[in-house]
Formats: sequence, structure tokens, C-alpha cells
Amino acid sequence: MGMHQYLQSLSNLETIQRAPGFFKYQNHSVAAHSFKVAETAQFLGDVEENAGQTVDWRSLYEKALNHDYNERFIGDIKTPVKYATPTLRRMLADVEDELSENFVHNEIPTEFQAAYLRRLSEGKDDSLEGRILSVADKIDLLYESFGEIQKGNPEAVFTEIYRESLKTILSFKRMACVRYFLKAVLPEMLAEPFTSQSHLQALTKRILTAAAQSD
Amino acid sequence: MGMHQYLQSLSNLETIQRAPGFFKYQNHSVAAHSFKVAETAQFLGDVEENAGQTVDWRSLYEKALNHDYNERFIGDIKTPVKYATPTLRRMLADVEDELSENFVHNEIPTEFQAAYLRRLSEGKDDSLEGRILSVADKIDLLYESFGEIQKGNPEAVFTEIYRESLKTILSFKRMACVRYFLKAVLPEMLAEPFTSQSHLQALTKRILTAAAQSD
Amino acid sequence: MGMHQYLQSLSNLETIQRAPGFFKYQNHSVAAHSFKVAETAQFLGDVEENAGQTVDWRSLYEKALNHDYNERFIGDIKTPVKYATPTLRRMLADVEDELSENFVHNEIPTEFQAAYLRRLSEGKDDSLEGRILSVADKIDLLYESFGEIQKGNPEAVFTEIYRESLKTILSFKRMACVRYFLKAVLPEMLAEPFTSQSHLQALTKRILTAAAQSD
Amino acid sequence: MGMHQYLQSLSNLETIQRAPGFFKYQNHSVAAHSFKVAETAQFLGDVEENAGQTVDWRSLYEKALNHDYNERFIGDIKTPVKYATPTLRRMLADVEDELSENFVHNEIPTEFQAAYLRRLSEGKDDSLEGRILSVADKIDLLYESFGEIQKGNPEAVFTEIYRESLKTILSFKRMACVRYFLKAVLPEMLAEPFTSQSHLQALTKRILTAAAQSD
Amino acid sequence: MGMHQYLQSLSNLETIQRAPGFFKYQNHSVAAHSFKVAETAQFLGDVEENAGQTVDWRSLYEKALNHDYNERFIGDIKTPVKYATPTLRRMLADVEDELSENFVHNEIPTEFQAAYLRRLSEGKDDSLEGRILSVADKIDLLYESFGEIQKGNPEAVFTEIYRESLKTILSFKRMACVRYFLKAVLPEMLAEPFTSQSHLQALTKRILTAAAQSD
Amino acid sequence: MGMHQYLQSLSNLETIQRAPGFFKYQNHSVAAHSFKVAETAQFLGDVEENAGQTVDWRSLYEKALNHDYNERFIGDIKTPVKYATPTLRRMLADVEDELSENFVHNEIPTEFQAAYLRRLSEGKDDSLEGRILSVADKIDLLYESFGEIQKGNPEAVFTEIYRESLKTILSFKRMACVRYFLKAVLPEMLAEPFTSQSHLQALTKRILTAAAQSD
Repeated sequence: MGMHQYLQSLSNLETIQRAPGFFKYQNHSVAAHSFKVAETAQFLGDVEENAGQTVDWRSLYEKALNHDYNERFIGDIKTPVKYATPTLRRMLADVEDELSENFVHNEIPTEFQAAYLRRLSEGKDDSLEGRILSVADKIDLLYESFGEIQKGNPEAVFTEIYRESLKTILSFKRMACVRYFLKAVLPEMLAEPFTSQSHLQALTKRILTAAAQSD
Repeated sequence: MGMHQYLQSLSNLETIQRAPGFFKYQNHSVAAHSFKVAETAQFLGDVEENAGQTVDWRSLYEKALNHDYNERFIGDIKTPVKYATPTLRRMLADVEDELSENFVHNEIPTEFQAAYLRRLSEGKDDSLEGRILSVADKIDLLYESFGEIQKGNPEAVFTEIYRESLKTILSFKRMACVRYFLKAVLPEMLAEPFTSQSHLQALTKRILTAAAQSD
Repeated sequence: MGMHQYLQSLSNLETIQRAPGFFKYQNHSVAAHSFKVAETAQFLGDVEENAGQTVDWRSLYEKALNHDYNERFIGDIKTPVKYATPTLRRMLADVEDELSENFVHNEIPTEFQAAYLRRLSEGKDDSLEGRILSVADKIDLLYESFGEIQKGNPEAVFTEIYRESLKTILSFKRMACVRYFLKAVLPEMLAEPFTSQSHLQALTKRILTAAAQSD
Repeated sequence: MGMHQYLQSLSNLETIQRAPGFFKYQNHSVAAHSFKVAETAQFLGDVEENAGQTVDWRSLYEKALNHDYNERFIGDIKTPVKYATPTLRRMLADVEDELSENFVHNEIPTEFQAAYLRRLSEGKDDSLEGRILSVADKIDLLYESFGEIQKGNPEAVFTEIYRESLKTILSFKRMACVRYFLKAVLPEMLAEPFTSQSHLQALTKRILTAAAQSD
Repeated sequence: MGMHQYLQSLSNLETIQRAPGFFKYQNHSVAAHSFKVAETAQFLGDVEENAGQTVDWRSLYEKALNHDYNERFIGDIKTPVKYATPTLRRMLADVEDELSENFVHNEIPTEFQAAYLRRLSEGKDDSLEGRILSVADKIDLLYESFGEIQKGNPEAVFTEIYRESLKTILSFKRMACVRYFLKAVLPEMLAEPFTSQSHLQALTKRILTAAAQSD
Repeated sequence: MGMHQYLQSLSNLETIQRAPGFFKYQNHSVAAHSFKVAETAQFLGDVEENAGQTVDWRSLYEKALNHDYNERFIGDIKTPVKYATPTLRRMLADVEDELSENFVHNEIPTEFQAAYLRRLSEGKDDSLEGRILSVADKIDLLYESFGEIQKGNPEAVFTEIYRESLKTILSFKRMACVRYFLKAVLPEMLAEPFTSQSHLQALTKRILTAAAQSD
């Protein structure tokens, strides 16, 4: 029993994939997702602060960094929406919570247990930091699903994920950071250039013509 | 709604990994595991038949082939033994069963529903075929953990898995197929050669000496 | 010499890829393909039985499960059609058959040799089960090539494979299972939704508008 | 120009590997490493706080999370020690710094530039938080090299990395968190069980004997 | 010190990826790229020879094969054009050169040092062979970027790479091999067929109709 | 028909794996192997030249670079020695030769056909360059098998490959380059350091003691 187990477990989060079996173009580990959510929350915190809010930065970073550690125990389960009832989802959440508590009591030395119980509990509460976490988590999911759609993944599940993520973000639309995201980030995401063969043919012709004229 | 969804789902089972995050040397998909268990059950069925038992082959193949289809819904969750209580395990099994029933009722055409409810329900009953499935499933798990141990994976979880698998196999030790496995297969598995650097040095010296003498 | 070699060889089939070097989006191992063909054959058997045919289920499962075991010896060779003459294909098949016979005689204990010679010989005969296997094998190949085409793989070889597979399926068009496939499965496959950037922009606008109105 | 570029760049850090070409058993992306360092720094911060130090948690999380963002520009270059002189290392660091500054001025909107110049500059200063980052960074590198050595990677570069990391950690040995690490974590790491074939044979014999006696 | 280090280093070049983090569909190792450039240079040499030029084949092969060996030391750094100034690029090149010289002096036995200093120095000089290498290197890069664009990779960086490669090739447009490439190879590349769902639907309908008529 | 097909085919050789299903630690593509063999042949050519032989460098590079291009057609088939008779091997070689000839006649423009027929035919003849190729090919195979053995791959097939490779190299032991390899390279390969846990414990204790004394 000791922190060695904990430090080594971080490496497990590098090998647990999000939505296993769904991503075709780029896989995302729980470790990498946690990093991206923390970076995104940091940026959303900047916006809130610029808008006059007081951000508890320690709490924000702590919530974002640790919000998916529990997936170490049962992995990331993104059951297709249509087969999972709310009851089923609650049951899964309960399982995860108990595994997490068992872990803290069995592995974490006493002097750190309070900190880890707080870190491994649900971070998405009604505080400013909890709401920023909710938004940051969905922004990363939006980017992950956008990445698949943009590269041509035809599975409808990614459109569903995109839609659900955007809707959740919108449910926080009174927050300054969400307003900034909708105004200044989302339009740039949707304006991302697509390359196609016809584009390539035109580009090639243009370069060849220019070269011919420079003779 | 229709069998297209079902046929396409088979490809999902190719991308769902067993014990995600644990295997370091060779990953095993649920599809490949199901294939290996069916092949192993086929061999165990041979032994039982040679020993005078009557095997219901249709039932044996059907049980083996479909026994993990449900993992399509929540993946393969091999929670480390120490954090999971029997209650938790039962809860997870219940979640899986409900997702599976929802799936059959929503996706499978009426004329095939009875067959798929049977195929996706628990196959490890007390029938000869159910017991052969239990043994075949554990033999494949034994080989999977042996593969990691043999290649040097130091994680204790594989010794635990090896031990639990062998114990379960032994709990069926009155079956002819288990006796055959213990007598004629397990010893060969444990006698597998290991290659080491000192072995290599000796081998090289031997070849060089032989070549020198043949001059 | 013994069944340990055989059981361990199953794990080799997990690492031998189909059409190595061609699939870009999703690789398929021989083990996973065998699983999918057996599952597909099981479904086609249901249709035939519902249509009044008597299915020898043991034979059907056995044929489907083992039909590509021989690829353990020389891998999956899908030489581009244009460079391979019928003579060349026959030569390759002969090589495979001899390697397979050598294997059974050298590795499989005497009491199981008859069973494995049967299992490793050509299963695509004129029996109902042999014909179902022929169809199931091509349905899986059709899905594999569809998966690549749908995700945007531009290599012409997949259109060729799709065409050849569909033609072979059609050559069995008097079978009830093929008629069911053409009527109830193929149209759903071709109706699979595609997601595109313009779709995404429309979806986003719709969600944003709805959110604006709900204020 | 805008934060969309920044958010999308996070996904690049998922695909940039640390020490490319060296890790054989488990690859580590820059994103995952940043997550692990932030988690490790969080734990070291706990120890310092318990020992009476005042930790600026915002600064600690910020430093840890962002300390390798710059690797987005030239990747992770771990040139074997013997070929790289201090001059060469300084030249590489200068290149990285300039790319990073160019990035902030070209891509980050004015109101966030100060924050990102701070975040992307060298975090390993003499502050308590800077020193914790230095230690956390090396603890993760120690675990990464230990993971390779433990699984049998014979390349001497990992012993070199292990040695250099431990020496750097020891250079901070007056810090409470380093003393805790040396006393309570390192011994457990070195006591990790190894599984070997002889172990497996003994274990198997023990289980078989126990089963025989229970008859 | 000796050639064993050198021979073993070749295997490192198999694991160093080109433009790490950018290719989504097909990764290219430095080893494989070197092979392709040498094969391409061989073909361009044929064209020059047929056009009456005298090719120093030893020099051509040597230049092409070894032109990226130096990437062993700092990997392949394709910093996005906009953040890297010419000064920065020159600094990186200098770092690489010094690492390479250190390597030859420390590892290569004296009798081979002259050969390896020549092989690891810049091969793209003004000789016919140096110019063929410049063209071959860019043709492979053109194919690599085309492969990504053709499969739907939306990242603008590949259009930039395609454009820059084509422009560099055109700057050698007085060479016979470039004229052949522009006339006989580039048009075929741009005429590569694309497969789409509508194509698939038409194809399927055609096959089904033909089958119906043959009844 | 044209060189575009040929240039694009080079990228196929990047995705065809050697001995598919056998390598567990590091896979080797045919493209990367060809690069390594050409680099190794270049070094062996240096030795021969230093020993007074006249090397036809164009022929040496050409043979080495192209010696496995044919594997594009049927992949790399390394059937376990015991199941393959000499007749079978010859049959496979014949298949490969015919596919290769079909390819040159169908795809390569007339003016290059003679060159490609020479390049794609068997290069391991009795010339100095043919013998250097034979040795270089086996040295790379020796390194590939050594890499697996050294990292702990327990499959006996790699010891067999190591033995067969060394024997073939020895059959050329009158060549200067083989004598150099046996005297100056092989001993260094076998002296490669192994890292073990006990080594790590000793190393750690040494560093800690040194640090304690420097207080």
C-alpha cells in the first residue's frame, strides 16, 4: 500500500482508450483526454477571469486533471445512446464510485486519503469551476468527434456525439466562456479547409502555368 | 432495424480489446478470443466424444461462438480482483444483460429474436456443452496470460489471472477433456523453450567451431 | 507433438492480417475474419431453416470456423487479379494443401487426425453447408471492402473486391439466404449515412437557432 | 488567428511521441506525459504542504501542465548523451524558444498573450513550484525507463536515463517531497515482483497438488 | 566503438517517423522513405541515361540511400512553415551536422571514416546526381502528401507540402527526368480513381441488373 | 500503364510486414528491410574494397535495393522450416517469378523493361556483388532475430532463424567481409549489455550512497 501503486497507475491511463472500438482515425487515451480538458479549462478560466469572475484556479486544475481517473477501474463506456436507459447509466456510475472508494481506502496512505477522495469524486458541481469542467469536457469531446467527421468517419455515432456535446455546452450559454467559444472558436472550427482531388488538380495546373510563364 | 446492423456490429468486436490497458505484448480482440474459444471447445468436444460422451455439437459451437457478443455493449471489464466485490460484479452483469435484451428487441427482426435471445444469454450452464465452454474460455485465458508471462510482462495481474484460470479449470477435473488437458497439454506448455543471451553465445560458439573444423 | 502446438497456433492467426498492405482504416486478422464468417453463416443458416431447409449445424459451424486455418502456413495472399493466372492460383492452393497435410501428420495426435484432416480441407463443396460457407465468406469480404470504400479509401482494389464478392454471392441467388441478403440487408448497407462538413454546419446552425429561441 | 488553432493543437500533442524510436514496450505521447507530470506534481505538492510549506497551487498546476507544450514545434529530442555537447543542447533550446514566441504572437489573441508567454516559458525556476516540477518531470522519466527495463528492454539508453533521472532527483534531496519519494516510493518500485517460467511451474504444481488433495 | 553500433542503428531508423504527429493514414519511417527515394532516384537515373546523360550510379545510389541517416540524431522536424524563419532552419541544420560528425568520429572505425563523412554530409549538391536526389526526395514527399489528401486528410499542411514539393521539382524543370515526370507520371497520379458511395450504388445496381437478365 | 503505378507500389512495400505474425517487439516492413540490406551491403563492399577486391558498386546497390521487390506480390512467406519441403519452396519461388514477369510486361513502359527485368530477377548469383547480397540479407535477418531474442521473445523460431542465418553467412567465410563481420561485429553484438532488476537495485544503491557521502 502506498503512492508507488498510484504513480504506476497513471501509466495505465495511457493505455485505456476512450470509446474503444469507435474512433477509426485517432485514438484518445484517458491520460491524453485529461490533459486536453485541463488545458481547455485553463483557457476557459482565462475568459471568465477577463470577464470579471473570480476563478479558484487550484480547484479548477484539480477538477479537470482528475475528472476521469476513475475510468482506470472500468474503462470508458460510451454505450450507444439507444440501448442505455438512465437507470443503466446510474448503475454504471455507482459501480465506478464504489471501485474508486475501495481503491482510496486500500491503496492511498492515510495522510493523503482526504485529498484523493475529493479528487476522485464527481467534479461537475454547480461551482464556477465545476461548470467550467462540464464545458471543457464537452469541448474536447466536440473536437474528438469533429476530428473523426472531418476525416470522413461515416459512423453516425459521431454526429450524435457532436450534437449531444454542443447541446450540453449550450445549456451553459450564460457563461462568458461559452459565449466566447460560440462567437470566436466554433466558427473557425467549422471553417476548416477541406482538401479534395479537384482542388489538387486546380492547384497543380496553377503551379505548372506559373512555372511555364516564368521561363 | 435489421440484420445489417448485426452484421456490421461484428466488425466492432474486432476493435474491442480484452482487458484494455493490461496486455503489453499481444492484444486480443473479443472477435479473436471468440474464435479461439470456439476452436478450443471443438477440440475439447473431440476428447469428450472419444471418451464416450454424446456432444450436442450445434449447441457447443453456438455457445462458444457467441459467449462474449455482449461485450460489444460495455467492453471487456477485468477489474483487478481486489477492488471488485461480488455485488459489483453482479451489478455489471445485470447492466450487460439489459443492454443485450434492449438490442435484440430493437434491432433483430422478429423471426430471429428467439435464436438471438438464446445465443446472447449466459451459455455457461450445467449441460456438458456449458461446462466445455467454461473450460475452453479459461484455457484461452490461461494461454493469453501465459503469453504475457513467458515474454516477460512483470505485472502481477497475469499471475493472478493464470492462477484463477487454472483453478476454474481444475474445478471441472472430473471431465475427460480436463484430464486430457492436464495430462497432455499443460506439461508441454510449461516446457516451452526460453531463449536467452547465454544460450545464444553457446549456440554461436558451437556453429563457429563446427565451421572451423569443416575447413 | 501434441495439441499444445495447435492451441498455441490459434494465437498466430490473431496476428496474420488479411490482404496485408491493403487495408488502411481497419485491419482484419484471420482469427477475427473466421469469427465473423461463422457468425454470418449462423445467420444464413437461420434463414435457410426458416425457408424449410434442413441445416446440418455441426457441419456448418465446423466449415465456417476452420475454413482459413491454412492461412497460418502462407498467410493471406490476395494477389491483384491482373497479375495472377488461374495456373498460379492453383499452384498456391497446392502449396497450402501440402503444408496443411504435413502439419496434421506431424503435430496432431493420431486419435484426432481424421477430424483435423476434414476440418482443414476445402469446405466450400456443393452441400448446403458448403454453399452457405461460400456466401458467408463473400459477405464478410463485401463488408470489409465496403468499410474501406465508405471511409474513403481510394484504392481501386476495393471496388474490384466489392464487385467480385457481389458477383459470387449472386451466383448462389437461388438460395433463400442470398435472396434475403439481397432484399433485406444490402439495401440497408448502401443506405448508410455519410457525414460531411456541410451536414455539420447545417446541424450546428439548427442547434444554435433552437437554443436562441428557447431563451 | 485564434484559440481554435490552440485547442486543435492539443490533439497534435497526443501524436508526438517521447524519445521516438526508443520505447519498445509502451510509447508515451507528450500529452500523456504532461498529464502524468501534473498528477505527480500534485502529489509532491501534498507532501510539501503536509511538511509545512506553502504551495502556490495555481502556479504548480500551470507549470506542470504546460511544461512540454513547446515540443509541439520540434518534437521530443532525446539525443543520446554522448553525441550532444552542452552547446548543441543550448542551440536546440533556443530554436524551441523562438518557435514558441512566434507561435504566441501569430496565433494567440492579444488578451491571452501574456498568460501564454508565461505558460510556454521555462517553468523549472528556483521557486518551490519550479523545483517540484523538476522533480516530477524526472520521476515520470524514471517510471518510463523503469517500465522498459522491467519488461526486458536491453537498450543501455534506459539505464542511462534511469541513472540521470535519479541523480537529478537526488540533487533536490533537501526537499520534503524528495525525501518522501526516496523513503516510501522508490523501495516499492524496486520490490516489484517479476514473474518467470520457474515461478509458473512452481505455482502450477502447487495448485495441482492442492486440487489432488481436495479429492 | 565499431560497426556493430552502426548496423544496429539502422533499426532505429525503422522507428523514427517522418513528420511525427501529422500523417493520419499511413506513417512513413525514415528507413522506408530512404528506400523509396533510392528507388525513385534509380528510375530518374534511367530517364537521364536514356536522354544521353552520363550517370555516376555509385554516387547516385549512395547519395539517395544515406541522405536522411542524420535524422537518427534529432528525428524528422517538419516545423510548420509559418513559425520557422530561415535562421532557425539553419540553426537546426547546424545541430544535425555536428551530431553527425561527433558520431562518425566516436563510432566508425578509422578505415571507414572518410566514406561515412562523405555519406552523411549533404548530398544535394549541383552534380547531376545531387540534383536527381533533390527531385527524388520531393517526388516521394509529393506522393506521401498525395496519399493523405487522396484519403481525405483535411489538414492544410499537406496541401502546403504538396505545393512546396511540386515547386521544388519544377525548379529543376530543365532536367529530362523532371520533364518525363511532368508529362508521364503526374497526370496519372491526378487521374487516380476515387470511390464514393454513389459510385457503389450504381455499381451494385449494374451487377444486380446483369444477374437478373442472365436468368 | 506507366511509372506512376511503380512509384505508388513502393508505398505498398512499406505496409507489407516480414514474417507476419512472428515478430512481437519490432515489426519490419519489406521497404525498411531493403534499406537496411542496402546499407549493410554498402559496408561489406567497403571491406571488400579495402581488402583489394574490385566492387561493381552500381550492381551491388541495385541488387541490394531491389532484392525483395517481388514480395509485393505474395508477401513475405517464412513458412516454419519443418512443414516446407524443398519442392514447396521452389513452387513458391516459381509463382513469385511469374507474377513479377507479368508485372513488368503489363506495367513498366517498354524503354525501362530490360532494366526492371534485371532488377526484379534473382540477385544472389555467384558474382562478388551477388555474394555480398547473400551475406547482407542474412546479416539483417540475424539482427532482426537477435532483436527479438534479446528482448525476450521465447518463440523457438527465432533461434532457428538465427542459426540458419549464421550458417549461411559462414558458408561465405572465405570472403573478407565475412571474416571482418565474424571478428569485429559479431562479438560486439553478443556482448550487448542486458539490464535486469538486480542490476537496477545495485545501481540505485550506488547512486544513493554516493549522494549520501557528498552531503
